[in-house]
Amino acid sequence: MSISKIVVIGGVACGPKAAARARRREPDADITIIERGDLLSYAGCGMPYYIQGAIETADELMSTAGGVVRDAAFFDSVKGIKVMGRTLAESIDRERQVVEMVSLETAEKSQVPYDKLVLAVGADAVLPPFPGANLKGVYGLNSPHDAEKIKDSMLNGCKRAVIIGAGLIGIEVTEAMATHQLSVTIIEMMDSVVPAVLDFETSSKLEKHLCDQGVCVMTGTKVKELHGDDTGQVNAVITDQGIVEADLVLIAVEVRPNIKLAVDAGLEIGETKAIKVNEYLQTSDPNIYAGGDCVENLHLMSGKPAYVPLGSTANKHGRIIGDNVTGGSSTFPGVMGTAVFKAFDFNVGHTGLSEKDCVRLGIPYVMALTPGPDGAHYYPTAQSMTLKMIASPEGKLLGVQAVGEGDVVKRIDVAATALSCGLAVSEISDLDLGYAPPFSSAVDLLSHAANVIDNKINGLGRAISPVEVKHMIDAEEDFILLDVRGQHEVEKTSLKNERVVNIPLGTLRKRVAELPKDKDIIAFCTVSLRGYEAQRILDGEGFDRVRFMDGGLVGWPYSLDQDWRET
Amino acid sequence: MSISKIVVIGGVACGPKAAARARRREPDADITIIERGDLLSYAGCGMPYYIQGAIETADELMSTAGGVVRDAAFFDSVKGIKVMGRTLAESIDRERQVVEMVSLETAEKSQVPYDKLVLAVGADAVLPPFPGANLKGVYGLNSPHDAEKIKDSMLNGCKRAVIIGAGLIGIEVTEAMATHQLSVTIIEMMDSVVPAVLDFETSSKLEKHLCDQGVCVMTGTKVKELHGDDTGQVNAVITDQGIVEADLVLIAVEVRPNIKLAVDAGLEIGETKAIKVNEYLQTSDPNIYAGGDCVENLHLMSGKPAYVPLGSTANKHGRIIGDNVTGGSSTFPGVMGTAVFKAFDFNVGHTGLSEKDCVRLGIPYVMALTPGPDGAHYYPTAQSMTLKMIASPEGKLLGVQAVGEGDVVKRIDVAATALSCGLAVSEISDLDLGYAPPFSSAVDLLSHAANVIDNKINGLGRAISPVEVKHMIDAEEDFILLDVRGQHEVEKTSLKNERVVNIPLGTLRKRVAELPKDKDIIAFCTVSLRGYEAQRILDGEGFDRVRFMDGGLVGWPYSLDQDWRET
Repeated sequence: MSISKIVVIGGVACGPKAAARARRREPDADITIIERGDLLSYAGCGMPYYIQGAIETADELMSTAGGVVRDAAFFDSVKGIKVMGRTLAESIDRERQVVEMVSLETAEKSQVPYDKLVLAVGADAVLPPFPGANLKGVYGLNSPHDAEKIKDSMLNGCKRAVIIGAGLIGIEVTEAMATHQLSVTIIEMMDSVVPAVLDFETSSKLEKHLCDQGVCVMTGTKVKELHGDDTGQVNAVITDQGIVEADLVLIAVEVRPNIKLAVDAGLEIGETKAIKVNEYLQTSDPNIYAGGDCVENLHLMSGKPAYVPLGSTANKHGRIIGDNVTGGSSTFPGVMGTAVFKAFDFNVGHTGLSEKDCVRLGIPYVMALTPGPDGAHYYPTAQSMTLKMIASPEGKLLGVQAVGEGDVVKRIDVAATALSCGLAVSEISDLDLGYAPPFSSAVDLLSHAANVIDNKINGLGRAISPVEVKHMIDAEEDFILLDVRGQHEVEKTSLKNERVVNIPLGTLRKRVAELPKDKDIIAFCTVSLRGYEAQRILDGEGFDRVRFMDGGLVGWPYSLDQDWRET
Repeated sequence: MSISKIVVIGGVACGPKAAARARRREPDADITIIERGDLLSYAGCGMPYYIQGAIETADELMSTAGGVVRDAAFFDSVKGIKVMGRTLAESIDRERQVVEMVSLETAEKSQVPYDKLVLAVGADAVLPPFPGANLKGVYGLNSPHDAEKIKDSMLNGCKRAVIIGAGLIGIEVTEAMATHQLSVTIIEMMDSVVPAVLDFETSSKLEKHLCDQGVCVMTGTKVKELHGDDTGQVNAVITDQGIVEADLVLIAVEVRPNIKLAVDAGLEIGETKAIKVNEYLQTSDPNIYAGGDCVENLHLMSGKPAYVPLGSTANKHGRIIGDNVTGGSSTFPGVMGTAVFKAFDFNVGHTGLSEKDCVRLGIPYVMALTPGPDGAHYYPTAQSMTLKMIASPEGKLLGVQAVGEGDVVKRIDVAATALSCGLAVSEISDLDLGYAPPFSSAVDLLSHAANVIDNKINGLGRAISPVEVKHMIDAEEDFILLDVRGQHEVEKTSLKNERVVNIPLGTLRKRVAELPKDKDIIAFCTVSLRGYEAQRILDGEGFDRVRFMDGGLVGWPYSLDQDWRET
């Protein structure tokens, strides 16, 4: 049997993982990695933390847990894998099964034959064609070299940073720069931060937190051009909402898969403009596999192709491709669109479908908006968060998103697992999740949200979202906002809207006669647990126009400090 | 239609939850709670934290998130539920559907009729019949009153505490007392701490952590009697391993379900000696439901009845019973045996089956022992933990346990969810869990453990557990312990065993000739990632007696500081 030749194009995340897995499965294979850059196997997701200084040297991003830098010598001696660094794969001759390359050092051309080829060519940050995008002080964040340049600028006199794009990376770098006392403005074209991931109720919480940290957040704002001084150094960002002065600009608008090689080779490209692969991560050429940030995935909830580039997915792809280029038949089921990140003191996460996704895809849904603590409410280090759950009208879980100081990510991971298994909300409520006061309430917030949806589906709970309440207020409708909190609570946070009537829950049974039966009543409390209870009490008293407001005051995504009509 | 009469015996956790749920479903029902004590709806699981001082007043354990104490007046005005406190339910007349009661205040007897009866009578800590168990200064922890007494003793001169029983509550109270500078000895009859939950590799980690915190841990130790002074105050615990002086003794050996009422009424009792219920939480009398700490549950992994009293389960039971006593037909699937707790800086958790369970039940299994960080290894606040995963030889997940400073509970919750859905390890490895450097590695430790098991099942990885290695050493077998770490690592932690040969992984391919093919070789590194890689390299070189050691040096559950033969 001849020795199998495996060629991997791309030396970060998916590529090295595929190569190393192939090596472990096939000790004799001839394995080569071709990488255009000079750095291998770096942790791209760690770059914001290097800028921040949480990670001290860029080398740490390229090291094993044992502290060894993963360079070509490491791959040669430890993994038995040949690495051709600073080498550009120029084209693929699929008929002859050969990759044409050029050395970026010597300009020398060469070829390498393959039996199996792996495309792990990643993605690049898109620099939109703003006038001025090529000024000094304007960056994208593609590699540790970019991170080093940004960090240098930041530490050497820059005072005012503008981040264009309030996605995950934009927000992570915002935190990094604010930590270094830069004045940071984050500009987002869409109406809310992290628009691809969060609905309005959760993104508004995050936006408020960013503002509380001193970040200037400009949503619904289009960048028109970048302006520079005589030396070609950027000094302002011109937007449709005004001019923002800047010494440093990071463009973090979008990453786009690198598909040129694949297109030139005639491989099929998917509808998301990333390389199309089957469940074996095989391209339209059965001898060519592709994985990581250059491919599209099946979104398991929408059933549609999705482009969700992530280091975790790239590593899974690498392992599966390593299997399949050595005779295996492993499959990748798809992604749940899970995304989590840290933003100052907030943890943020999402998995599955958002309400926005459901509306866009025409999928009917029921939602619960449940603020609450991550541990027992009496446990002193318990932190709060706001969780939003989406389910089908039949009760099948569709998605969860959450933001806040609390342990968001645990709930997102449980939800991602539940989504993978097609669980119903009633099944989530029955999960035997770990309970102890430091970690959870006796009824975990995730189970509580599932119960709220179950109540809505079974007709016990009738709710209205805060967004709808705001619309009713704006439309000057006549209805009652029934605040069922106690007097001391109302004194702390009072709503100035003239529709508000305060009847504490404990007195509601006696004071029912004070409420009209011929008006809409929207009951609420801090988080609408009591609001729901009030609805049930009034239902029992023969009222039929009572609803509770999802999420209560804590879930209210508008300002509480002024008359609601003015926000 | 006549008004339905619902009587609930037991005013903590399950009982009030069932009553409140029933009220929300049926506004007109006549609902009564009978409670022997004077406290309602308290959070029993919070008691160790009250003793510790993390929770300042016992009232907080009985308050809603809104700060209202849940007393009889609260239940009356807010919930519309009548509470008879300090009232003992003496017997159930099932034929007449009447509960006979006696007031513990006035000794007055009375009766209450029911259409549906709920037994939520809980469990009590067992005080084993040690001579001296009735001395002053000897406590069980059954209610906030006990917690108050223990806290008073602790704050008023007690210096030396002995905790009998190293289960969850014993360890939580140990932490509470050590926080107050008491010298604490914890005595456990079995050979390891938390023996009902953890296997040896994980319990030994926890035991070491307790010792590091200054706790004296005595495992494999039987208490023979408690000794007191002339005033009847305890002053020593006499064990088969010697005498331990003590001013304060907590007995936390076992809790036992309160089944007397049920037994007297002729209701069926299960094999665990708790009340037997069906999936609707109905006892053998269809008009009597039972839930919470007095019933047994189906263990979903073993398929056998299990007694696992937990506040979270009690709340789930309450909701389901509230449905079913008002015409619903909700079901409770069973439990996964999930248990999590905090012990000083360690988080500890378990779900599903342990290795010990598998051995006891005769279930074949494969295991992975994987120490690792909870975030990206380069992220500065990443904390370590040791995770042990158990799967069937076909790859179905059977259980997970984990200990360490890291975020154990997230992995336990994901595992509990995966177990509920019957996931295979290959499916766990594909889960789209949240990834960002503060929260996870690109390959989360849970996925990594799943991959290790997958490798073992597919014959790529061959391993030996540290326990088996220890047996081989003790049996003076002739084999090679191949340490493939780098020189600087070996210098930090050197093993003195004469079987150890050090060949760093990067030089192994060149130095293969130094190793014999006719001896067993057990490769390891810090966590045995490289140990596994070494095994694959040697396999490729024609060796057929090479295995890696599960968990590497970090997973080694014995002392590393001396010659292994002496530990």
